[in-house]
Amino acid sequence: MTRESAGNSGDDGYSVVYDLDSDCTVDDISHDTPYLAEINGIVDYGVFVDLSDEVSGLVHESVLEGTYAVGDELVVELETVRDNGDVAFEPIDVDDYAVQAVSHDYALTGTDRLEANVGEQIHLEGEVVQVKQTGGPTIFHIADEYGVVPCAAFEEAGVRAYPQVEVGDVVRITGTPEHRDGSVQIEVDGLSKLDDDVAADARERIKAAIEARAEPHDVDPLIDWPAFEKLRPDLKEVAQLLRRTVLEGRPIRVRHHADGDGMCAAVPVQIALERFIADVHENDDAPRHLVKRLPAKAPFYEMEDATRDLNFALEDREKHGQQLPLLLMLDNGSTAEDVPAYETLAHYDIPIAVVDHHHPDPEAVEDLLDAHVNPYLHDEDYRITTGMCCVELARMIYPDLTDELRHVPAVAGLSDRSKADAMGDYLELAAEEGFDEERLQDVSEALDYAAFWLRYNSGDQLIQDVLQVDSDDDERHEELIEFFAERAREEVDEQLDAAMAHLEHEDLDNGAHLYRIDVENFAHRFTFPAPGKTTGEIHDRKIEETGDPVITVGYGPDFAVLRSDGVRLDIPRMVSELEEEVPGGGVSGGGHLVVGSIKFVKGKREDVIDALVEKMEDAEIDEALSSAAPIDD
Amino acid sequence: MTRESAGNSGDDGYSVVYDLDSDCTVDDISHDTPYLAEINGIVDYGVFVDLSDEVSGLVHESVLEGTYAVGDELVVELETVRDNGDVAFEPIDVDDYAVQAVSHDYALTGTDRLEANVGEQIHLEGEVVQVKQTGGPTIFHIADEYGVVPCAAFEEAGVRAYPQVEVGDVVRITGTPEHRDGSVQIEVDGLSKLDDDVAADARERIKAAIEARAEPHDVDPLIDWPAFEKLRPDLKEVAQLLRRTVLEGRPIRVRHHADGDGMCAAVPVQIALERFIADVHENDDAPRHLVKRLPAKAPFYEMEDATRDLNFALEDREKHGQQLPLLLMLDNGSTAEDVPAYETLAHYDIPIAVVDHHHPDPEAVEDLLDAHVNPYLHDEDYRITTGMCCVELARMIYPDLTDELRHVPAVAGLSDRSKADAMGDYLELAAEEGFDEERLQDVSEALDYAAFWLRYNSGDQLIQDVLQVDSDDDERHEELIEFFAERAREEVDEQLDAAMAHLEHEDLDNGAHLYRIDVENFAHRFTFPAPGKTTGEIHDRKIEETGDPVITVGYGPDFAVLRSDGVRLDIPRMVSELEEEVPGGGVSGGGHLVVGSIKFVKGKREDVIDALVEKMEDAEIDEALSSAAPIDD
Amino acid sequence: MTRESAGNSGDDGYSVVYDLDSDCTVDDISHDTPYLAEINGIVDYGVFVDLSDEVSGLVHESVLEGTYAVGDELVVELETVRDNGDVAFEPIDVDDYAVQAVSHDYALTGTDRLEANVGEQIHLEGEVVQVKQTGGPTIFHIADEYGVVPCAAFEEAGVRAYPQVEVGDVVRITGTPEHRDGSVQIEVDGLSKLDDDVAADARERIKAAIEARAEPHDVDPLIDWPAFEKLRPDLKEVAQLLRRTVLEGRPIRVRHHADGDGMCAAVPVQIALERFIADVHENDDAPRHLVKRLPAKAPFYEMEDATRDLNFALEDREKHGQQLPLLLMLDNGSTAEDVPAYETLAHYDIPIAVVDHHHPDPEAVEDLLDAHVNPYLHDEDYRITTGMCCVELARMIYPDLTDELRHVPAVAGLSDRSKADAMGDYLELAAEEGFDEERLQDVSEALDYAAFWLRYNSGDQLIQDVLQVDSDDDERHEELIEFFAERAREEVDEQLDAAMAHLEHEDLDNGAHLYRIDVENFAHRFTFPAPGKTTGEIHDRKIEETGDPVITVGYGPDFAVLRSDGVRLDIPRMVSELEEEVPGGGVSGGGHLVVGSIKFVKGKREDVIDALVEKMEDAEIDEALSSAAPIDD
Repeated sequence: MTRESAGNSGDDGYSVVYDLDSDCTVDDISHDTPYLAEINGIVDYGVFVDLSDEVSGLVHESVLEGTYAVGDELVVELETVRDNGDVAFEPIDVDDYAVQAVSHDYALTGTDRLEANVGEQIHLEGEVVQVKQTGGPTIFHIADEYGVVPCAAFEEAGVRAYPQVEVGDVVRITGTPEHRDGSVQIEVDGLSKLDDDVAADARERIKAAIEARAEPHDVDPLIDWPAFEKLRPDLKEVAQLLRRTVLEGRPIRVRHHADGDGMCAAVPVQIALERFIADVHENDDAPRHLVKRLPAKAPFYEMEDATRDLNFALEDREKHGQQLPLLLMLDNGSTAEDVPAYETLAHYDIPIAVVDHHHPDPEAVEDLLDAHVNPYLHDEDYRITTGMCCVELARMIYPDLTDELRHVPAVAGLSDRSKADAMGDYLELAAEEGFDEERLQDVSEALDYAAFWLRYNSGDQLIQDVLQVDSDDDERHEELIEFFAERAREEVDEQLDAAMAHLEHEDLDNGAHLYRIDVENFAHRFTFPAPGKTTGEIHDRKIEETGDPVITVGYGPDFAVLRSDGVRLDIPRMVSELEEEVPGGGVSGGGHLVVGSIKFVKGKREDVIDALVEKMEDAEIDEALSSAAPIDD
Repeated sequence: MTRESAGNSGDDGYSVVYDLDSDCTVDDISHDTPYLAEINGIVDYGVFVDLSDEVSGLVHESVLEGTYAVGDELVVELETVRDNGDVAFEPIDVDDYAVQAVSHDYALTGTDRLEANVGEQIHLEGEVVQVKQTGGPTIFHIADEYGVVPCAAFEEAGVRAYPQVEVGDVVRITGTPEHRDGSVQIEVDGLSKLDDDVAADARERIKAAIEARAEPHDVDPLIDWPAFEKLRPDLKEVAQLLRRTVLEGRPIRVRHHADGDGMCAAVPVQIALERFIADVHENDDAPRHLVKRLPAKAPFYEMEDATRDLNFALEDREKHGQQLPLLLMLDNGSTAEDVPAYETLAHYDIPIAVVDHHHPDPEAVEDLLDAHVNPYLHDEDYRITTGMCCVELARMIYPDLTDELRHVPAVAGLSDRSKADAMGDYLELAAEEGFDEERLQDVSEALDYAAFWLRYNSGDQLIQDVLQVDSDDDERHEELIEFFAERAREEVDEQLDAAMAHLEHEDLDNGAHLYRIDVENFAHRFTFPAPGKTTGEIHDRKIEETGDPVITVGYGPDFAVLRSDGVRLDIPRMVSELEEEVPGGGVSGGGHLVVGSIKFVKGKREDVIDALVEKMEDAEIDEALSSAAPIDD
Repeated sequence: MTRESAGNSGDDGYSVVYDLDSDCTVDDISHDTPYLAEINGIVDYGVFVDLSDEVSGLVHESVLEGTYAVGDELVVELETVRDNGDVAFEPIDVDDYAVQAVSHDYALTGTDRLEANVGEQIHLEGEVVQVKQTGGPTIFHIADEYGVVPCAAFEEAGVRAYPQVEVGDVVRITGTPEHRDGSVQIEVDGLSKLDDDVAADARERIKAAIEARAEPHDVDPLIDWPAFEKLRPDLKEVAQLLRRTVLEGRPIRVRHHADGDGMCAAVPVQIALERFIADVHENDDAPRHLVKRLPAKAPFYEMEDATRDLNFALEDREKHGQQLPLLLMLDNGSTAEDVPAYETLAHYDIPIAVVDHHHPDPEAVEDLLDAHVNPYLHDEDYRITTGMCCVELARMIYPDLTDELRHVPAVAGLSDRSKADAMGDYLELAAEEGFDEERLQDVSEALDYAAFWLRYNSGDQLIQDVLQVDSDDDERHEELIEFFAERAREEVDEQLDAAMAHLEHEDLDNGAHLYRIDVENFAHRFTFPAPGKTTGEIHDRKIEETGDPVITVGYGPDFAVLRSDGVRLDIPRMVSELEEEVPGGGVSGGGHLVVGSIKFVKGKREDVIDALVEKMEDAEIDEALSSAAPIDD
């Protein structure tokens, strides 16, 4: 609490005299204001008075009247502060006054001005977002309105300093910014938890500032696309959530579908987050520690991955005092199959955001998500791919990235064979950057191929080189893409050479062609392309060869993948029906109208597939339907 | 060797005059004791004498008689030590004397008093337990009677200091304790290997002290259980071995069965060891470096795990100069199947201790183990679970843990369906801590479920949260356990929905029900529950449905798991017979009377199972027999 | 450019006067040489002159004639340099002169003389081989004629110093060698990129010196073996390439066949490289960072491994500023199957060297390799094993290793059942070291066994203990080898016990015995020995039992491994024919005349094997042919 009003100088009596707190300095004194002083020394040319521990000065004998003893109180006002720092006061004649305390005005230095104050003692207020006990000092990571800074407090080596202070508390720190391992760190001289009401104010102030800074950038869309505009408010919400998460110092774990569209989604967002983190955090290692991208092979969030993610998060909290992360699911995560994994995380209050374009089960997931973007929620469909969404998302987070991303939506669209009207505009946009359709197709194939061999590895640098984002050598990487794409095509051809000979054809009653392929027995296993892609490639060839309508089923010992063009299969309904019709079949699965996969127990494969084909006979022909978004296995 | 007796002062002749070793200091001098001195300087007010390299002083001319030359010997006794450190002696008249050497009295400072001596030079004696060459100094980890401390000796950067000193040597160190990265470390001024006889004495003294400190705590059993008391001496032996291992600075590698009982065994012991290590070691990182818990999926110690363990141990020795570890096998390790892995480690003199409650092959393993606890060795059985044993073991190691462990034996018992009489007491004990049977059952299911998805990951924090040991948020984790338990039950139900339809039933001649299930073809693969648990769940349902006697066989392409209640199968005997009866069947396996698993080559499955069923027809009915301890796969 | 000739002193006129560059010091001045000076001060006892920024001195009034003003030029020569560093000049009378610039003579201190100059400022010229940005300084690793040294330049913490300087530039550094973490590092005072022509000279000089140092040691072969001599020049080329790679500071990644011969090849080369790196690099961690050995299970370089290798290399470049590595393929890598992986690396200009003794496809790989050693390229064959080659290679790189390697070629030969004439000499050589044939055989079996259980782990220490290279405890490891070898034999026996009963025998028309074994159905899976070794062991037993000619086929669901003794199969030709003859069979594979493996799709197994056997009927008998080099799977 600082002084509320300056006193009036004059001959008439004063109503208020100010009493400086012991930690007040000369900076807390105003002119023409009465202060309570105490005499601490008498010399022949005057008396010395103390106004606080830090503020002393002379009252010259020329302005003194009467006699004084050490310890006497005196009301004074500032006469002058000399160049050498000496302070002179003059006594004020005041008969009747009320005393009001003045607390030291700690001028706060925001984390945006630390570099300019290196070596100077400053004051900082902020929220504790991480408390890491090292072998030496305790490191409090403090977020204020401007950023996050590590503050090192030393109690005893390896001993927790300020044990009463925890993540989430609002604190005031007095300390000195210093360079340390390439970053600015504050060496803490004092740290105090703010009192509840003061903390509430500060928290409110910081929160408001963070909320303001979290506001996503208002970027113009790369292309003009009305359908997409419906999703924009949801994307802005995710952008705000992610920026806020960064500003609050919370880690982000990105899980994404390990296919072309998934990587076109995840890589731009990852880079945007890394750059924003670098801006926000004083600590140079923060981008590496606070964002992790992890590919997922399954088309949903598996319990195994969730358990692993949770385990890592708990270990990071234990070892590094980090907050538990936010989970960002990309090109995955909208369906009921994700629920068990989400519920596992929910017990640890881990926030979850999803951007996906697979057919969602909104009622199943909605309660578990902090944000959810999916074109189906706005009567749009898979044609707006996750990559297209996430390029805009990345730009809302970090607009300077725009120039590196113009070709990415086209790659995403080609990867998922999007038939969106906007594809033309995206292709044109990419062409302006030197990516003609052939090259884009190569990038898409190369992404798929590299992702397959990288398995569970994110392969940051290699994927960035393939996608040409945050990558530096154009010529070489053009060669690389050509090479990977060519290898991918050759290996697909090899696989299909074996498989096509074993394709079983059937004319369904509804006029559709049905193709079946036993991918376990007539395709190579554990190699590129995997069963899902193998089935898709066969399907595409057969559409080209015969024209719609075509259904293709690729089956293994305990699974089948389905693709349809021109026939409304409604796979979720089929699965429910099969569950009942094939007792002991252990049928489960998912997908949407024309793309999906089914699992069953090995011993009931024949029954399940027979029942399935029977259903296909009756399925409705609808030539508008196309199985674009591919299924991986 | 220090001075044995002080001389007598007086006028009569002395029998002994003491001769200080060159490294003696003033602290080695007593009053009223004659010392041999040599004159090294003559001044007009007296002569200066040397008693050792470190001790010189003046003999004032007023007390001198006769003439002296530099180099003359003189017998003196201490007159005074002035405040400024100057020492004055006076001559002693002594005619006939024997000279006795006085060695410097290195007052040793134990590792228990280092904190109080930071910044002061001290002496320390101990055994070298680790020698780590860093890029800078060589770090000798020294164990004395009180603990273990790292001592940094610098020869030249990256160059091995005192290359003649190795792990196992007893040394005397002169150095200065300093804080370093949150721990106390001694900066070495001098280090010498003790002479053989001195070393033997010191080693004896340290060993005796370590042995005394290794003595396990004499804790009262959590419940009164006479059967258990038979195992207590063996457990004390293991506790002593583990405490001694910690005191000797040797790492410990815990391998445990990755099921509920196995984790109820391993987690308490891990935490007890970590806390004891933190007490013993000055180095804060020691608990993390010196104890590792590793789940094992197989019901025995596989060669692959042993090779991996050995490889890590050798690398740690190479990189960090660590001793090779002690291996602690929990809820695993008592059988002949463990022998090849044990023999591999035996070539590197790696000690092995086992606490297990599976049917043991004592004659096969005994020679390879340093300690072995198993209820069958005392005519008890699996009903005393490993978790029950290890809670007592953990308490013997670190009794302060007791309050966190009271509910754990009940979880262990429920996990392994122990029918021990003591279960009632354990359940009551748990109930007092707020764990009713339903909650305990949830913990047990949740452990199983989490362990399945964690695969080979120890998941320390998550498992501690599930087990509620060394965990902090009661409410949240109660929710977590409920959720995991419910998921586990749902997924078991789903699996059984598919499987039960394919169960084959047969009435055996001996009156038992035989159920067979093809888990490869009629259960989902690679998901929870695995084949062993699937078989067990089916078995339990059938017992409930039909009453004893029931045998259940779950078989895959090259394995079968067996469960029996009320029929004496004697699986080890069956396996031996099948080996002979089915030539080329590649039959192997293990287990005990009513629980076990058999492996064979795929192509002989039918022959093996037919022969097996034939044996079951003849098996003796014994309603007391129950297949409680589950089998994992 | 330094002064070309000293001037002549005398009374007659001078033709050349030297003008010191501004950075010249007193060390650049010679006696009796005229220098251009400028007067910068006049005092009553003389004038002060500047010869450069660093060189000033007095010209005493006693030797001056006439009057001078500040700024006047004066030609002087050195009179004296006083002990206190003061310099005196005297004026020279010179009428007509040409001025010639003198640049500062930076006496370079090579990286071989850093230890002697610790704490002294030095100059160093060299090529930048790594630029690592740390949180603090930027670390430039500089290679000169003598070695590589890290040089720390500090701009601002975490900020790239000298951003214009990149890997590959030639620079001159002024700095001070200091001890840092056990190594010598130069603290940079100044760093400049050399001008193009100067750089070219320096680069030429450094390159010539590196080339000279890269020259492999001229070691006498361990045994006298004319056939081997044909390969020696190629091996020297690889040795030179590897030594040059080390001298240039580039990392080396060794991929090798994970069998006995592969490890006898890779381990000696790894150790030779590590020791050479330790000699060359000032940084103690360099051996660990710059050479990695990785076993590969497949008999060729798989895309998955190449993708992983590339990904790691790109990450190391990103994180540590390392050059991309050289890939060294050992006992693997000569065939067309390696091409896709090689082409992937080729896009990143990663050099590749191969030492292999499997039947090569030189035309397929030649363009992709920087060096290729293979006995078949010299009309020799697999009998010269890769291990034999690489022991000589290791000795060329680091001859001091010789004494530890004498027994290794014999192990390599036995592992691959080499029937080379030289085997006798190698066995004799090993016997001199105490390795009789039985022990060598044990080492070979033990290597195989340990490699199997280590899976993808290199297991450095354990493998060195087994191979007895860079290992210290003879007795224990002899026991270890015996134990592993015995386990290996027991497990082979167990496997064969099951399998032999199911062996199908056929007398082929050409008189050969054909044995077939279904290793999927009649051998244990996922255990030692794997299918390839199982087949080989059966084959060996049958040869012993029946005598040549024998063909053995071990087949699984989608693969077959082939071994022949006494029959010319020509597997590559068979594979090409089968590709055509079995449409939709997905046939691929490789190998050579008598050893190979074939892949196909599961559903066409019968067709493929029938067609294969038909071909075998017609295969030519050639008793000289032996299937020595084993195939792994």
